[in-house]
Amino acid sequence: MNITTGASVDQILHINNIRDQLIRLEDTIIFLLIERAQFAQNKRIYEPGAFKDQISWDGSWLEWFLFEIESFHAKARRYTSPDEHPFTPIDKLPIPVIEVQNYPPLLYAPAASHPDVNVNARILDFYVNHIVPGRDASLDDGNYGSAATRDVEVLQALSRRIHFGMFVSESKFRDAPHDFIPHILSDPPNKAALEALITKPAVEAKLLVRLANKARVYGCEMDGDGKVVASPDGIVGKIDIEQVVGLYRDWVIPLTKDVEVDYLVHRLEGVPQEQIDTWLAGGKK
Amino acid sequence: MNITTGASVDQILHINNIRDQLIRLEDTIIFLLIERAQFAQNKRIYEPGAFKDQISWDGSWLEWFLFEIESFHAKARRYTSPDEHPFTPIDKLPIPVIEVQNYPPLLYAPAASHPDVNVNARILDFYVNHIVPGRDASLDDGNYGSAATRDVEVLQALSRRIHFGMFVSESKFRDAPHDFIPHILSDPPNKAALEALITKPAVEAKLLVRLANKARVYGCEMDGDGKVVASPDGIVGKIDIEQVVGLYRDWVIPLTKDVEVDYLVHRLEGVPQEQIDTWLAGGKK
Repeated sequence: MNITTGASVDQILHINNIRDQLIRLEDTIIFLLIERAQFAQNKRIYEPGAFKDQISWDGSWLEWFLFEIESFHAKARRYTSPDEHPFTPIDKLPIPVIEVQNYPPLLYAPAASHPDVNVNARILDFYVNHIVPGRDASLDDGNYGSAATRDVEVLQALSRRIHFGMFVSESKFRDAPHDFIPHILSDPPNKAALEALITKPAVEAKLLVRLANKARVYGCEMDGDGKVVASPDGIVGKIDIEQVVGLYRDWVIPLTKDVEVDYLVHRLEGVPQEQIDTWLAGGKK
Repeated sequence: MNITTGASVDQILHINNIRDQLIRLEDTIIFLLIERAQFAQNKRIYEPGAFKDQISWDGSWLEWFLFEIESFHAKARRYTSPDEHPFTPIDKLPIPVIEVQNYPPLLYAPAASHPDVNVNARILDFYVNHIVPGRDASLDDGNYGSAATRDVEVLQALSRRIHFGMFVSESKFRDAPHDFIPHILSDPPNKAALEALITKPAVEAKLLVRLANKARVYGCEMDGDGKVVASPDGIVGKIDIEQVVGLYRDWVIPLTKDVEVDYLVHRLEGVPQEQIDTWLAGGKK
């Protein structure tokens, strides 16, 4: 996790710090989509078993890439970082071969590790079925390795972005636990109320405008002189701006909310009643 | 290799097509440098044997990453593509587990596979010692995996860019073999004359201007509203523009020329005298 050396838990979980990281992640995601869009869609790499005779692997080519890359990253301790979640089930990945970094306790462990909170299967599904960039879905250029390498990178960045919702929830919960507790403890938990507490429509609207701006700026085509140009068919840029906005509006934002709410739903599991009472009386953590 | 389906060898090797790919690669390299610059320099990952006790590996952490990532990419046939060259010696990498793609014969094999032409050891050296981005060389944030993952991506893109010089040489050689042959056959080969034939100072000057432009545009910082902002210390952007320009001016361009010239030096090895005579008489290939 990208933490400034010596930062305190309160500094790391400050909502402004979290927001800065989320804004920076938008750039990464747009860059990676632009890189992926250089290659044909290559639908064959998403079909389960399409390469079964050659790689003895029942899943898709992309899932093979995820497994192989994540196996190595697991050895290099990637999934010991609180903001990283593999697409491959963790028990199928090797253990770290190097000493694990010590992170301060940022998230409430029982909530963060609850299976409901991991939405990677849903991320993989929406990415493959709705997002893979490229103007013509029927094209296959044989660049299966290049395409899948970029897919893995996009997926890892999306997963990091969406699961960052846990930090948002923890930050907001710590700030005003008494607001959240009644909705968590109601039976069943009041998910709509929890969602309302963490949703800021104005911030979301601004995000979508900013995103279109970034896709326009980072995706522009420059000629030999460095001047921004439009292609002969009138399309400016290496990436479909509306698609980038739709990715966030239809998938990233709703899934992040699910992560945020599911984290909150489990936030009090195992917390002593005494602590809950203190919070309800207006104390912060 | 990113080849439009059905393109002929002449189309692929047309200098305009090659130039377009080189210009596009500038964007990739700048994106990747920006991504790397998020992390501290982490000098420890470049020290040979620094993690020896943990990963039983004599080389550096970065070389371990190169070996592991390239091992997987080799299985996925990456290094059978004529524009890809591993940093790990090819005999230490596994063979492809899937059927190799058929590429049209784009390069002259004896020249392309000559050891002089592979400059990856030099790329790794200048990258580690002069380029690794990050404002403060003394910082270590423990993000060794994240940093090395980006390093590998930058190195792979630089390697592709620099070895693309072979396509430039082949393209120019095919266009006017009679211009090159006397300098190749002189003893020793006249490298200065060969370099003069492939060097276009005006194109290089334009490239550096374009690159600064791209680094400015792609590396800009945007605030929450999507407006470009300067940081409090007056620096605009996520990347040092002068460093990006210097990377090309001092390293990428000179090394590409070495690759181009070394390819040409070996271009006639094994070519029948009759063919050479036809070329000298003014025929093209």
